[in-house]
Amino acid sequence: MENDYFKQDWRRGEKIQILQYISMKWMMCFFIGLLVGLVGFCNNLAVENIAGMKFVVTSNMMLAGRYTMAFLVFASSNFGLTLFAGLITAFIAPEAAGSGIPEVKAYLNGVDAPAIFSLRTLFVKIVGSISAVSGSLVIGKAGPMVHTGACIAALMGEGGSKKYGLTWKWLKYFKNDRDRRDLVTCGSAAGMAAAFRAPVGGLLFALEEMASWWRSTLLWRAFFTTAVVAIVLRALIDVCLSGKCGLFGKGGLIMFDVTSANIAYRIWDVPPVLLLAVIGGIWGSLYNLLQDRVLQIYNGINIRGAAYKIVLALTVSIFTSCLLFGLPWLAPCRPCPSDTSEPCPTIGRNGNYKKFQCPPGHYNDLASLFFNTNDDAIKNLFSKNTDDEFHLLSMLIFFITCFCLSIFSYGIVAPAGLFVPVIVTGAAYGRLIGMMFGSQSTLNHGLFAVLGSASLLGGSMRMTVSLCVIILELTNDLLLLPLMMLVLLISKTVADAFNGNIYDLIMRLKGFPYLERHAEPYLRQLSVSDVVTGPLQLFNGIEKVGNIIHVLKNTEHNGFPVVDEPPLSAAPILFGLVLRTHLLTLLKKKAFLQNLVPAGYNAFNQFSADDFAKGLDHGDRVENIQLTDEELDMFIDLHPFCNTSPFTVVETMSLAKALILFREVGLRHLLVIPKVSGRVPVVGILTRHDFMPEHVLSLYPSLAKSKWKRLRFKLPGGVKIF
Amino acid sequence: MENDYFKQDWRRGEKIQILQYISMKWMMCFFIGLLVGLVGFCNNLAVENIAGMKFVVTSNMMLAGRYTMAFLVFASSNFGLTLFAGLITAFIAPEAAGSGIPEVKAYLNGVDAPAIFSLRTLFVKIVGSISAVSGSLVIGKAGPMVHTGACIAALMGEGGSKKYGLTWKWLKYFKNDRDRRDLVTCGSAAGMAAAFRAPVGGLLFALEEMASWWRSTLLWRAFFTTAVVAIVLRALIDVCLSGKCGLFGKGGLIMFDVTSANIAYRIWDVPPVLLLAVIGGIWGSLYNLLQDRVLQIYNGINIRGAAYKIVLALTVSIFTSCLLFGLPWLAPCRPCPSDTSEPCPTIGRNGNYKKFQCPPGHYNDLASLFFNTNDDAIKNLFSKNTDDEFHLLSMLIFFITCFCLSIFSYGIVAPAGLFVPVIVTGAAYGRLIGMMFGSQSTLNHGLFAVLGSASLLGGSMRMTVSLCVIILELTNDLLLLPLMMLVLLISKTVADAFNGNIYDLIMRLKGFPYLERHAEPYLRQLSVSDVVTGPLQLFNGIEKVGNIIHVLKNTEHNGFPVVDEPPLSAAPILFGLVLRTHLLTLLKKKAFLQNLVPAGYNAFNQFSADDFAKGLDHGDRVENIQLTDEELDMFIDLHPFCNTSPFTVVETMSLAKALILFREVGLRHLLVIPKVSGRVPVVGILTRHDFMPEHVLSLYPSLAKSKWKRLRFKLPGGVKIF
Repeated sequence: MENDYFKQDWRRGEKIQILQYISMKWMMCFFIGLLVGLVGFCNNLAVENIAGMKFVVTSNMMLAGRYTMAFLVFASSNFGLTLFAGLITAFIAPEAAGSGIPEVKAYLNGVDAPAIFSLRTLFVKIVGSISAVSGSLVIGKAGPMVHTGACIAALMGEGGSKKYGLTWKWLKYFKNDRDRRDLVTCGSAAGMAAAFRAPVGGLLFALEEMASWWRSTLLWRAFFTTAVVAIVLRALIDVCLSGKCGLFGKGGLIMFDVTSANIAYRIWDVPPVLLLAVIGGIWGSLYNLLQDRVLQIYNGINIRGAAYKIVLALTVSIFTSCLLFGLPWLAPCRPCPSDTSEPCPTIGRNGNYKKFQCPPGHYNDLASLFFNTNDDAIKNLFSKNTDDEFHLLSMLIFFITCFCLSIFSYGIVAPAGLFVPVIVTGAAYGRLIGMMFGSQSTLNHGLFAVLGSASLLGGSMRMTVSLCVIILELTNDLLLLPLMMLVLLISKTVADAFNGNIYDLIMRLKGFPYLERHAEPYLRQLSVSDVVTGPLQLFNGIEKVGNIIHVLKNTEHNGFPVVDEPPLSAAPILFGLVLRTHLLTLLKKKAFLQNLVPAGYNAFNQFSADDFAKGLDHGDRVENIQLTDEELDMFIDLHPFCNTSPFTVVETMSLAKALILFREVGLRHLLVIPKVSGRVPVVGILTRHDFMPEHVLSLYPSLAKSKWKRLRFKLPGGVKIF
Repeated sequence: MENDYFKQDWRRGEKIQILQYISMKWMMCFFIGLLVGLVGFCNNLAVENIAGMKFVVTSNMMLAGRYTMAFLVFASSNFGLTLFAGLITAFIAPEAAGSGIPEVKAYLNGVDAPAIFSLRTLFVKIVGSISAVSGSLVIGKAGPMVHTGACIAALMGEGGSKKYGLTWKWLKYFKNDRDRRDLVTCGSAAGMAAAFRAPVGGLLFALEEMASWWRSTLLWRAFFTTAVVAIVLRALIDVCLSGKCGLFGKGGLIMFDVTSANIAYRIWDVPPVLLLAVIGGIWGSLYNLLQDRVLQIYNGINIRGAAYKIVLALTVSIFTSCLLFGLPWLAPCRPCPSDTSEPCPTIGRNGNYKKFQCPPGHYNDLASLFFNTNDDAIKNLFSKNTDDEFHLLSMLIFFITCFCLSIFSYGIVAPAGLFVPVIVTGAAYGRLIGMMFGSQSTLNHGLFAVLGSASLLGGSMRMTVSLCVIILELTNDLLLLPLMMLVLLISKTVADAFNGNIYDLIMRLKGFPYLERHAEPYLRQLSVSDVVTGPLQLFNGIEKVGNIIHVLKNTEHNGFPVVDEPPLSAAPILFGLVLRTHLLTLLKKKAFLQNLVPAGYNAFNQFSADDFAKGLDHGDRVENIQLTDEELDMFIDLHPFCNTSPFTVVETMSLAKALILFREVGLRHLLVIPKVSGRVPVVGILTRHDFMPEHVLSLYPSLAKSKWKRLRFKLPGGVKIF
């Protein structure tokens, strides 16, 4: 936003201030990386220790034959952890429920959802995520980490939380949306980097999926942030190598290492992989479809109140505990292989061969998957030289259970990510394909599991480069790269034929007016004047206070064109655009004039730039401003506070073209001027909502059936799911 | 571009055509990937075989003690190869000289340099690059591969080369700039991917360095293209495993594999790495500075004619041959280590221990570096367990020689990349640092060499993510990632304090009006009306043919505002914008009217959309159009051929803000409208040149000294280099 006032402010800046501003931004990125790295590490540490302790205790009971007791301890600890996560989420910060990625993505597109970046949300997101993941729910921690990172960045950009008085004056450098958005982008990159220890993957995730605008400076800043995260994680893991981190173990920087010196796949390995990719894409889109329906049902339940929310969460928890503990009993005990390098059955917590109820020298293959944290299950599924460890039927049971549980677990009142469930489900799916079609293949089943995860991720999240690099950084297997790229592309293409990206579906359910980059073809057939609706609210250059109050109370617009009319000018001219927030500030400060005379530049002395800085919380409301009748009859000179050169388009421009301008430049208001001058100098104002397909189609329903809609397979009209 | 005519055309399209269009685009990407992969592989194969043969022959002569003869063969084959590359470049396609990356980057920014994407250029680029690289010049093949990829993509997008009649009608689908630019972006990604067998790195290179606009659809398309490249390379390398590729060898997909199962660096390894990064940044910026100066001198020589160009190239070749053959004589022969896993001295071509002039059982460490292809030198420098192979002095000689040769080799009349020279110089530098400061380090000297390459690349090219991923894919060492990121960030930051990116320097030397994303601060102080210069050329809605001819002959503008004046309308209104190319088409087709009456929509019947499709070669010139005097008195109805809703800005808008619109939306013309209507409806037209710092500063020289210039260390006024 550019008005006379800010221009004045900017010109006052000295070289030293610019230097200070730039180094501040880099400093912020450094601290974001540091904090997110720390949080990510602690999160991991806490989950491994809480969940690990639970499994150690129950496993010991199982060894002693006290199976009922083991189940009770297992189920009740899951119940307690879920209850805790649900309680804090429902009562302290309902915004922290779910993944958080859709909210952050919408914010970066310009949609401000309330309270998503508050200190409360941050706290609940971190603690709730640890507690819910430790409670053996089939949910991930990557989404919450992204939200946590974004939250830390937003709070730092704001200089702390205003509400709790935790503000630092010197941090209030970042007054504009762009700086805040940059920091939040870096924060979300850092979050993903910390969740998967994948610095480049996290950066690319922020670039491909999250950010709506991108500049190379931002790329470098995000790279710096994720580099800091990588170094912090590397250093902390080094500390853990000395064994001081409890059950965290001595893992390296790579979470699921599948390196093998020489993967020599040949041309005949490709057909099963292609099959895997195609079916994976179908599974992925089915996953999105079902998730969407389940979320609609859950929303219907959750809306009735906190008690309902918590009961729903607890139901899911009990159900999950029963399945996780119950299903392994179906699997027969299998004798330990003689040639394994690992102890069998597993002693302690980690390891591929869980004893569960089996006699010595035997292991239960389903228990190795179910009776474990999700991370360990993935590790087992990805591991090499384990082609004979799992039975086909066990794998099938595990796949179906994971698929259903992950769909039913998202949407409960707790921080819950989607990445890890999809990875674990995909890994099981990949092993299944490997078992069925890969007997001739030179690829081992662990690699099939990796490709299966890739295909399901591609089918559900619809990313390419970032998923590719994330999986690469998770598994450290560069030689698999050509196959991985192939799988991601195919599964994404197949899934795109059916429905959208899971995050976009969730955003639509939440009702965020997300502005797509791609213009729907029917927008080409409309001109901007076709969608400009309602009476336009204008202000005069010098406007009566009472009028402003009236308009602000009766409309919800955030921007108003300011027009100079005779006698102030010869003909009516469009002077500029004034924002609601600036009007409110002027009203609060009572910068009024007695009569219709321009105020001149001494008006500036009353204000400092901070008065117009936009906070993340919109505390000011016009109802709170008390004015006397006398004041209502006075005037305000709006000229110095206008953006005098707003972006304009001519009324005949096609909507698609105006959308490009709106989207690429990142506008909030776009003024529509008449083709033929002489009439009023402005005929309308376009905002984000005017470009929404819902809005356009409600005005022109006939377009919905036009041939221009996006090409996509639909379920036949009669078929309904749920 | 949007005019009535195209709208008409688009509406005629059926669903099936859209599907066809989309699948065509993907098909194109597939073929681009396929062709670039093939070319990249053949390029590699040819270089390895030609250069390899040369080294085998000379080595055999050396073994037989015929040193003079060996030198003569070595020098004369280099001379011949360079002469051939120089001849074809100078006489067939001078545009193919140099790296090509600056040209492609400028094209993607909207600057059309002539003939950079012709079939001649493509041919010379491929053959010349093979020949020059085989001629042992210290130049790379990555830059030429990027240009080759872009060239293939552009030619495919155009449907073949018009000039040679090699056009396919059905390929002429891509009529607009955006589609062509997308294909060229994919092509350059594919080129980089093929050069380094780094699909993700190539993609990120195109994203970070080349492209000026980016959409997620483009990201996926580029990902698809590089995936095809990866698969093609993988398949072809598989073919070579059977040993049918001559001297190409049996390398895998990873060029310089440095994997080690466990890199356990500790906190005390970090200080030498930091030192390496800082000094690497300084070297990198020095490299850019010297390269810039040398290029200026070379340009002065090259401009005198083809003979001068070729003599210059041959001088460099002879000089290089002398150094490569002569310098190893300085190194003392060293006894072979007893514990090496490789044969020593090397038998055949590859290997770390070159015998050169040494007695049996000894090797010459400098010859292992100099008397080898650049790729093999890098392989030797990156290899592990060779900490004692090289002497400090040898490494110092190699580093200085490479640094100087790479600077003096770029700019001669041959296709020449910058990546490989910088990597080899950086590797030598890294080993030097490792030898001097790394004696306590747990990192081996091979890893120091990798980090050294990263630091010099970062200091010279100023990329981050893409270099990081390229090096990762070259070396397959994920555990080094945190250190790598640190090194890249530091060296880039250090180097940015001194000067710009090497490609930007070359672009400036070439005089391309590259539009930066970042607005120089002083642009905020100017409004658009401050830079609009010269008399504005307007057309009436129905304009006299003679007038159009006159204006086209006397100006070089490419776009003209069309204004309707009384009696066509009540008041003067801005109807739209018409392009020079469209006017030329209309003139050629003689779509003239006898009198001042609008033509109506039957005007369309005369034209098909192909007539207005933009070709890459601007063959049409106004001078070639022959009209009778009678025709000159006739009229043209411009209305149907105008873009009726051009983007406009108000004259008071700041130049920085207008630049954002211009740059983000990717405009070529931006109309400036008056603040107060009633006067002429348009006051000026802004093009790319109006935003160039040179143009603005020539109008307002005082701004050059203003405090707003970019912060950068400068050499003191008195110090001059060369």
